[in-house]
Amino acid sequence: MKKNIITISREYGSDGRNIGLLTAKKLDIEFYDKELIDAAAKEIGFPAETVAAKEQKLTSSILYNFAVGTIYGSAYPREPKPSELPLAEQIFLAQKKAIIERAKRGPCVIIGRCADYILRDREDVLRVFIYADYESRKRRALKEYGELEENIDKMMREIDKKRRIHYENYTSQRWGDRDNYDLLLNTALLDPQKCADIICEAVR
Amino acid sequence: MKKNIITISREYGSDGRNIGLLTAKKLDIEFYDKELIDAAAKEIGFPAETVAAKEQKLTSSILYNFAVGTIYGSAYPREPKPSELPLAEQIFLAQKKAIIERAKRGPCVIIGRCADYILRDREDVLRVFIYADYESRKRRALKEYGELEENIDKMMREIDKKRRIHYENYTSQRWGDRDNYDLLLNTALLDPQKCADIICEAVR
Repeated sequence: MKKNIITISREYGSDGRNIGLLTAKKLDIEFYDKELIDAAAKEIGFPAETVAAKEQKLTSSILYNFAVGTIYGSAYPREPKPSELPLAEQIFLAQKKAIIERAKRGPCVIIGRCADYILRDREDVLRVFIYADYESRKRRALKEYGELEENIDKMMREIDKKRRIHYENYTSQRWGDRDNYDLLLNTALLDPQKCADIICEAVR
Repeated sequence: MKKNIITISREYGSDGRNIGLLTAKKLDIEFYDKELIDAAAKEIGFPAETVAAKEQKLTSSILYNFAVGTIYGSAYPREPKPSELPLAEQIFLAQKKAIIERAKRGPCVIIGRCADYILRDREDVLRVFIYADYESRKRRALKEYGELEENIDKMMREIDKKRRIHYENYTSQRWGDRDNYDLLLNTALLDPQKCADIICEAVR
């Protein structure tokens, strides 16, 4: 079956966003990344800045899930309404809605946000994972993203951890587990345009 | 840098050999799989059948490595000659020699046999890993390889384990670890010709 939707999950510093952009450009299809933050913000009535800052901050959310699990197990009378959920949960649900709706509109590339999992029942989705070894990613973050040497290790550890926890919290799947993807590309050796060419070949 | 050599590691039932064949055909380059058994047999002076049967049988070899490690640590007077090594070790060394020599001859596809690791110092190698979930591989083994339902689970477990142990014994790397590969393809969703097309695009 022809693949119309391309989801890209990526490790920090692996250049996944750039590869997604190049792919969307080459195929002349829509590209969704930060635009999904705006869509979620509009949906739940919060400023985009608040949503961007809160997106993938999960400590309270994980505690919440744990608490609800406990409450439901005993005598909680009803499911909470969306507006009663912690903000991180509200954002996830609003982004999920935006992802499902945009995938219906037509061919597109979607970056991150568990889109591979959210769209798992569609058969026309190519699920891509972009990765590289730690040193390659660090070099790219310093050289191309302009990050500072003194912060880089701490920042990379935090972002990697945040993405992993976010994914595993909402999907019950293991982040980066190859069985969740159709195609994994190592950008330590393959350059971004080559990766985009490979993805285009995969959906041709 | 242009990739001239394509190494294909694969899980049993993922159709990796077929994908390698299709790739070699499309690129019009050499294809090495069982031919490496013959080369090794010739090198060490054993019949090809013996080499094929013994290839990747590792119990004695692992014990041997352990023993040599111990002996070398104390008072073993010299490195053993190749002909003094257990047969599995002799086969590995002969195949290693054949792989290095064939890679020097020109562009080719090499199936299995730790070729990704053996050729790790060459910069023109594309390292591919072909995989699929257990049920997809089992379906393919029953339908396309003609395996019998009553044996299949035991056989798959044994072959998967054998490949993993063989690889990890000779490479000190983890079998299937994405950092050892440039490109991973899931054949649960991508068909063999599509996989070959993707690999060809990667080396174009």
